[in-house]
Amino acid sequence: MSLGTGRVTLAHGAGGRETWELLDRLILSKLDPGMKTALGGIGTDELDDGATLASVGGHLVLTVDAFTVSPPFFPGGDIGSLAAAGAINDVLMMGGRPVAVLDSVVAEEGLPLEDLDRVVSSFLRVLRSEGVSLIGGDLKVMPRGQVDGVLITAVGVGVADRPIVDSSLREGDVLIVSGPVGEHGAAILAAQRGIGVESEELRSDSRPLTGLMLPLLREHGDAVRAAVDPTRGGLAGVLNEWASKTGLTLVVDEARIPVREPVRSYADMLGVDPLTLACEGVALLGVDPGSADEVLEFVRDLGFPQASEIGEVRRSERGRGMVLLRSEAGGLRILEAPSGEIVPRIC
Amino acid sequence: MSLGTGRVTLAHGAGGRETWELLDRLILSKLDPGMKTALGGIGTDELDDGATLASVGGHLVLTVDAFTVSPPFFPGGDIGSLAAAGAINDVLMMGGRPVAVLDSVVAEEGLPLEDLDRVVSSFLRVLRSEGVSLIGGDLKVMPRGQVDGVLITAVGVGVADRPIVDSSLREGDVLIVSGPVGEHGAAILAAQRGIGVESEELRSDSRPLTGLMLPLLREHGDAVRAAVDPTRGGLAGVLNEWASKTGLTLVVDEARIPVREPVRSYADMLGVDPLTLACEGVALLGVDPGSADEVLEFVRDLGFPQASEIGEVRRSERGRGMVLLRSEAGGLRILEAPSGEIVPRIC
Repeated sequence: MSLGTGRVTLAHGAGGRETWELLDRLILSKLDPGMKTALGGIGTDELDDGATLASVGGHLVLTVDAFTVSPPFFPGGDIGSLAAAGAINDVLMMGGRPVAVLDSVVAEEGLPLEDLDRVVSSFLRVLRSEGVSLIGGDLKVMPRGQVDGVLITAVGVGVADRPIVDSSLREGDVLIVSGPVGEHGAAILAAQRGIGVESEELRSDSRPLTGLMLPLLREHGDAVRAAVDPTRGGLAGVLNEWASKTGLTLVVDEARIPVREPVRSYADMLGVDPLTLACEGVALLGVDPGSADEVLEFVRDLGFPQASEIGEVRRSERGRGMVLLRSEAGGLRILEAPSGEIVPRIC
Repeated sequence: MSLGTGRVTLAHGAGGRETWELLDRLILSKLDPGMKTALGGIGTDELDDGATLASVGGHLVLTVDAFTVSPPFFPGGDIGSLAAAGAINDVLMMGGRPVAVLDSVVAEEGLPLEDLDRVVSSFLRVLRSEGVSLIGGDLKVMPRGQVDGVLITAVGVGVADRPIVDSSLREGDVLIVSGPVGEHGAAILAAQRGIGVESEELRSDSRPLTGLMLPLLREHGDAVRAAVDPTRGGLAGVLNEWASKTGLTLVVDEARIPVREPVRSYADMLGVDPLTLACEGVALLGVDPGSADEVLEFVRDLGFPQASEIGEVRRSERGRGMVLLRSEAGGLRILEAPSGEIVPRIC
């Protein structure tokens, strides 16, 4: 059902009749019955103060992320599909099977309802395709000029037999990325700066990584020591987080990190390191060395042909974790954690 | 630890070094070890992609709410204490025992760090006093002018033996409110309009209702059919939600609804119905008629001396739920669901 050509009003966010009407048209009427609850609990079928899960076997995984990306529509997705995929991916990176999300939307007064509808529809489309329920949510409206467009906070809910905690990374583990990095960041940068780049060349890679992580955990769960999606701060950011968390040194071969040529040249043009640009459809894995080749092949066969072994984990010389980048010539330099602004409102 | 006199920068939200430093100073350093995890799971001790709960006995309760209140500091609280109490109350109203929260903060570039610190400290203070852990979160910064101040989305996590679902309300049930209504809404209205009202007279009632709900559920759990905190839309809003959800008619005695005199006269002055003003520390209960007197006395003894039986649930004459307000003279009129803007950014 289209929401027509109206605009978001403060009344839509006041919790009164207009709020309920909008929620019904925008979301509730689009949910199949099976999408309203998860694990035998209470969800958007009841519209109560919250949701429940009745039968949590194993560990429950919970994640939360605010999505503020600007512009809200970009090549490869929009803030709705990004939020859904982001919540699902965070659950997956914890070793969980995504079962549900809750969302909290803050919209600006005057936002075209059509835009809100488009964003929410994208959000729901991703959930539906992944078999993930929407079990709760909230909608607020802020007066014109007090928030820019629309923000979505997405809560991911999943169940894990054995959660993956990145601090489990050990000396000797092999680092694998599932695909080319920096795609989302480059696409958003281009969209923000409006620099004439062919939309086909720079597209966000935003997508749920269910098709990668669930088979991988099923077949090689014991071999996967650590997993993360390198979003804000990019690959350089998460490598440094792992190093600082574990006190280990991560040595990475620059030449083995897949970066697509349009991303590399666009980043070069702007003087930005593509390793600091966000990915929204890539996993960084820390893998047991005895299984690394097998895992790499498995990942490639799952439809990630550019997956690459990019480095390994070493004991730290001075007891303080760091990331070392090996150039093609063989020299080592420190890859610092990104700092400064990088790109505001990238995710 | 004070954060001094600096301001929030875009770098604080970029996911790089500055983000981690700020999170550490703002939040992590303030959490006691026991506050970092819940139910034997993984939390802010690991700073991973999300949190886990290891042993969920019974039903897991999840709630989400975005807090956008303006001004962020108001008599009786601030956006931080409001968000924490709000998440806790939503869990309680589902019949859950609050065990943890996750938070997602969006701050405006240029916000004084001192303000952010004050807000986050209030948030943590409420969690600490309620024995609730902070197991995950997110922080984003939006450029100056793209968001006003600070927004907090709070996710509440709890465990319930038997969730309270408001659609369980039945014909004959008695309606009880735990205290005077409209306090939060009146205080925010006054703060927004800057009309000279003594701060002692209009104060937000924002507070966790743990001390009401946990003993009540323990001692009279079977008698409590429905429970809600009348936030946005006030008592009129939630009564209408219940009526429309159940198809039952709720008959309420105007004279028995506690409204403090300063709230009533301020609402009158503005031409606003106090029954549409938000409460942030009040519960509306639907109670089995056989236990209603006992429950009312029990609630009063718990420290809610103004708790009042305000009405009862009746079969609907025309099969469509509605709310009827009985005047002191005995006449009945329909109490409509609030509509229109009421008060923007009230919670």
